[in-house]
Amino acid sequence: MEFTADQRLDDGVLERRFTLGEIPGILWTPGSASAAAPAPLILLGHPGGLDRMYPRVAARARHSAAEGFASVTIELPGSGERPPSAAAEQARADLRAAVQAGEPVSDDVVDRLVLPLVERAVPEWRAVLDAVLALPGIGSPAGYSGGIISIGVRLAVAEPRIAAAVLFAGSYVPRAIVEEARQVTIPLLVLLQWDDEGNDRQMALDLYDAFGSKEKTLHANLGGHTGVPPWEADSGNRFFSRHLR
Amino acid sequence: MEFTADQRLDDGVLERRFTLGEIPGILWTPGSASAAAPAPLILLGHPGGLDRMYPRVAARARHSAAEGFASVTIELPGSGERPPSAAAEQARADLRAAVQAGEPVSDDVVDRLVLPLVERAVPEWRAVLDAVLALPGIGSPAGYSGGIISIGVRLAVAEPRIAAAVLFAGSYVPRAIVEEARQVTIPLLVLLQWDDEGNDRQMALDLYDAFGSKEKTLHANLGGHTGVPPWEADSGNRFFSRHLR
Repeated sequence: MEFTADQRLDDGVLERRFTLGEIPGILWTPGSASAAAPAPLILLGHPGGLDRMYPRVAARARHSAAEGFASVTIELPGSGERPPSAAAEQARADLRAAVQAGEPVSDDVVDRLVLPLVERAVPEWRAVLDAVLALPGIGSPAGYSGGIISIGVRLAVAEPRIAAAVLFAGSYVPRAIVEEARQVTIPLLVLLQWDDEGNDRQMALDLYDAFGSKEKTLHANLGGHTGVPPWEADSGNRFFSRHLR
Repeated sequence: MEFTADQRLDDGVLERRFTLGEIPGILWTPGSASAAAPAPLILLGHPGGLDRMYPRVAARARHSAAEGFASVTIELPGSGERPPSAAAEQARADLRAAVQAGEPVSDDVVDRLVLPLVERAVPEWRAVLDAVLALPGIGSPAGYSGGIISIGVRLAVAEPRIAAAVLFAGSYVPRAIVEEARQVTIPLLVLLQWDDEGNDRQMALDLYDAFGSKEKTLHANLGGHTGVPPWEADSGNRFFSRHLR
């Protein structure tokens, strides 16, 4: 893990850009972080394109830092500056074509779009977890927060250091991932935008239903994909405070 | 409105039992309430049988009082000490018979069970609102919190002093009330227990979908009818703090 730039933000948060192998990422630690009381870590998921997503992801990180959490995000495979995947580009084109033609998006397209991404992204997140948890002032357990929800599902199943997750419904979910959700046992907060144009509401409800967790809460709010109300950031902080401390 | 008993609880909350005409009720005001800074009022709905419901309703009232809210509840028509309604008893028997036979509950039974209750309960709540808002130290706007959700819908439409509502899904809802929900415009927080044995989940989701409010949030939690997690009381306080102050 190599730090490439850092700045102290006006709320005291330290923002450090890094690369881990070929993966670029950003780490935020609260001004109050110390080796004596390590800050629990939140992995911030997003749909890819870190430069474009930076304002929203950084706002989430700083909101969490105000409650004493460290946060880290990385670029997704195939997005932003990272080498594109021809297969993913083809799947994305097929998805766009189906949506524009008003046709249902086939399971095959969803599988080709999402499953290879999950296969690549999850080991990368786990490597980031190894690297960040080795830094002073940051401690486990960790949480996952954000989309792509299928990546969150796989991490919740595969990575024992993830103790709780806030999952953003709002992307296509392969049927295999819905089945995998039955193995999830960690506490979950699932956010659903009720009028998300690019999201199948019933699929999101089915996924919530499938989770095996004894504690799972769904927060549905009126509005489109990017219209998550500001108070849900507080909900997320309270949820992680209950489970990561 | 005639006060019949009062006690100061150990958290400083003043609990006063009253009757308004033939309707028994309980009013809770926070220890900090003063005429200078009137406490916003929350109407606490419940499924009827105030003696049986007292522990849960009083706990909700005291939790709200800790955030500076006054709360009031009344016995439902036909419940507890109030004269029973033969038609309601018949509808309840028909409902039980259908459920025990494993048959779907017909719209007719739901209409006969719920609509007359809404017709009687809503004017009573409005009379209570008149009486309580005339007391010193309690101010509008008011909120409604609880079940029966059809009563909450009608109050939200008919009573302009109700500025926000926390509605508990978990009772049968007549189709006419789902239609009426389209006229609701106040901010809503809808609580749904995902595994509520006596509740039709799809009907609850349809009702949430129908509400005309621009701000509406659904919180679904795993568990049965009485298993609402304790942190939802905090969600309710925060929701009312945003909308009643």
